[in-house]
Amino acid sequence: MNTQQPRIIIVGAGFGGLFAARALANKPVDVLLIDRNNFHTFTPLLYQVATCALDPSEIAYPVRTIFRKNRNIRTLLGSVTAIDYANKTIDVQVGGQTRQEPYDYLILATGSVPTYFGQDAFRENALELRTLSDAVNLRNHILSLFEQATWVTDEATREAMTTIVVVGGGPTGLETAGAIFELYNHVLNREFLHRDLSTRVVLVEMQPFLLAPYPDKLRQAALEQLRSLGVEVQLGSPLQEVASDHVTLADGTRIDTHTLVWAAGVKGSPLAELLNVPLQRGGRLPILSTTEVAERPGVYAVGDMTYLEDASGQPYPMVIPVAQQQGELAAQNILAEMGVGEKRPFHYHDRGSMATIGRRRAVAWLYNKVQLRGYIAWLAWLALHLITLLGFRNRLNVFVNWVWNYFTYDRSVRIILEQGEGKVRSEK
Amino acid sequence: MNTQQPRIIIVGAGFGGLFAARALANKPVDVLLIDRNNFHTFTPLLYQVATCALDPSEIAYPVRTIFRKNRNIRTLLGSVTAIDYANKTIDVQVGGQTRQEPYDYLILATGSVPTYFGQDAFRENALELRTLSDAVNLRNHILSLFEQATWVTDEATREAMTTIVVVGGGPTGLETAGAIFELYNHVLNREFLHRDLSTRVVLVEMQPFLLAPYPDKLRQAALEQLRSLGVEVQLGSPLQEVASDHVTLADGTRIDTHTLVWAAGVKGSPLAELLNVPLQRGGRLPILSTTEVAERPGVYAVGDMTYLEDASGQPYPMVIPVAQQQGELAAQNILAEMGVGEKRPFHYHDRGSMATIGRRRAVAWLYNKVQLRGYIAWLAWLALHLITLLGFRNRLNVFVNWVWNYFTYDRSVRIILEQGEGKVRSEK
Repeated sequence: MNTQQPRIIIVGAGFGGLFAARALANKPVDVLLIDRNNFHTFTPLLYQVATCALDPSEIAYPVRTIFRKNRNIRTLLGSVTAIDYANKTIDVQVGGQTRQEPYDYLILATGSVPTYFGQDAFRENALELRTLSDAVNLRNHILSLFEQATWVTDEATREAMTTIVVVGGGPTGLETAGAIFELYNHVLNREFLHRDLSTRVVLVEMQPFLLAPYPDKLRQAALEQLRSLGVEVQLGSPLQEVASDHVTLADGTRIDTHTLVWAAGVKGSPLAELLNVPLQRGGRLPILSTTEVAERPGVYAVGDMTYLEDASGQPYPMVIPVAQQQGELAAQNILAEMGVGEKRPFHYHDRGSMATIGRRRAVAWLYNKVQLRGYIAWLAWLALHLITLLGFRNRLNVFVNWVWNYFTYDRSVRIILEQGEGKVRSEK
Repeated sequence: MNTQQPRIIIVGAGFGGLFAARALANKPVDVLLIDRNNFHTFTPLLYQVATCALDPSEIAYPVRTIFRKNRNIRTLLGSVTAIDYANKTIDVQVGGQTRQEPYDYLILATGSVPTYFGQDAFRENALELRTLSDAVNLRNHILSLFEQATWVTDEATREAMTTIVVVGGGPTGLETAGAIFELYNHVLNREFLHRDLSTRVVLVEMQPFLLAPYPDKLRQAALEQLRSLGVEVQLGSPLQEVASDHVTLADGTRIDTHTLVWAAGVKGSPLAELLNVPLQRGGRLPILSTTEVAERPGVYAVGDMTYLEDASGQPYPMVIPVAQQQGELAAQNILAEMGVGEKRPFHYHDRGSMATIGRRRAVAWLYNKVQLRGYIAWLAWLALHLITLLGFRNRLNVFVNWVWNYFTYDRSVRIILEQGEGKVRSEK
């Protein structure tokens, strides 16, 4: 290692951090990539892990493997607990001990966490879907309740066990609601021969429409496709109350359920608070158009955790392509500071967005122009996700599983894998 | 459901319980199959999950799926807590509540658990490899320690972190030691570019030889193959002391390590105690040659948890084929009690045994005659395990992974997936 080279620390191996690191690979800098996990998570497919279609490892790729050919990139498994921006060091919690790591440039890319918009009591009874562990927990929860439901004799109790409420009309909410509905009604209930165990899946959205950023026709198409699948959709009805055995909507509707999946919103990662700058709404860290943090020399931030307005005064959305492009730009602007090229402001290349709603149902809005729906949108979604999944072996396995699931309506990854305390020694 | 049919409860969905249930499928009986997990575990490949070669779901198959076409077999996810053999009922803990289930015939097939031969203090610092959760915990442990080791500067500390002690010279010990050695020295250390991070794997066996039941030439072949791979083998040296950062052997040898894998021995499942009969050595439940439990009318028991002597006065070994064949026999003898055929005593068809030691190394002893070693034994092992793995999709994925690993020396399933408390509601 050449100690003369500038040292760049990247915090977070999500899409933003990964693209920053890639842009710095084999450049004359030393990169330290820090994450709490030893893997990158392909978050768009978390709901497929939660609904038994994919294995956790099929959407998780070891960070070390991604950069194994790049000698200037090292990785550290740990959590950042402090940032000393005056002296340019950070504290990292590694296996029970704290390491201090110096930096010349810092790229923060720790994403977002769920927000309950002030109703933090909701959280106690909610299941989330932001991390791989969340997905495995949700899978365990759904499968355990279903196993119990098969043995419950009281109708009302059983119905509550097989009723799922998903909150949030964005892509995650739609995809999760659709996939859970299919899991229950096309897969699980085939194996419960002694009784009809169909389920209710209710999607609750506060606004009067789904998929807020989409054009009206696609919002409508998504709603129709969800309902044609069998999912109940409750629009314009915020949650009023969440208990362990029911939820109540603002209009008074009571739904008996033991499963509330929270996909209603996210806020910036709490790591932003370590910089002591005033945050924007949603806990997002304001950045300059170069992705730098003002008055914090050498500190850049990218992706969901940041707040930056476009030409029209709207903040860029908290989506993966923004994180990827900002991550790349942060890396390039750091190289520019070192004399390679010129610093550039952020320009978002928006290739559009898509959301899938179960088998053969989807909506896609490409380049803010082309609007697709139904089967063709679903095929586009499938192709895109196969292409972007990291790692050949993962892609092959995912493909095998998808083809298999498609033709057989099977979901093989149906194990309730409860983890004990975990006898991990000394390093804990 | 015809309530006139005799009701058979099978406890345990391991190899014994599964084969019993299969033999009762579509027969004029009602079968209830109870297990603590919703899946059957293909235990011979647990070590491959622990060493990042396979995903948990690739060796776990949902019990419901196995019997989905058999209307006379129901499954219950729960733990048996009491057996009232006088009134022929059992208590089952299901999601926090106790159910009482009546039976006409009971087949116990809950296998075995690790034993520390009276040295229960060893357990505190040992990792086991008997369940799927064990395998995931061991994987997390190994990967976490390795990540930390890459950042430790003190030589001695680092060496302790990358030293693995495996106790037990049976097939599990050999397979685990070999697979961990390959994982470290052929896979992980390729991605630690900044320092040589090779590992020590020490296999400790109390007896002066490995693979006790095998002929001498194969024992010797196994030892040579292990050593040629790079595993250190300590024969004739029982463990004296186990601490969190080292172990000591009886001859005084001290090995600094944070990883002790216990594969030294098993004893009968504690469920046997619920029958109030005197147990044999190793906590094994004595059974008659028909697999019935004496003086407990209608109660059968099979597999690892049982004790039955062969013609020469030796107890049958605690291995999968014995469990499978006893499970089948128990089912047939119950049908015989109902008037279908005649009750038969147990006759073990021993097709031999094999153990694998990493890539292209193995020993096989077929029909107690043919002795194979090396590459050909490994190919035989590979073929057998692919054939016996349940479920087409699993077999295909396992095959894809194996071919991929073989040619690339890659292990893709390298994620440290720590499970949190799990926000599972109400039913807990």
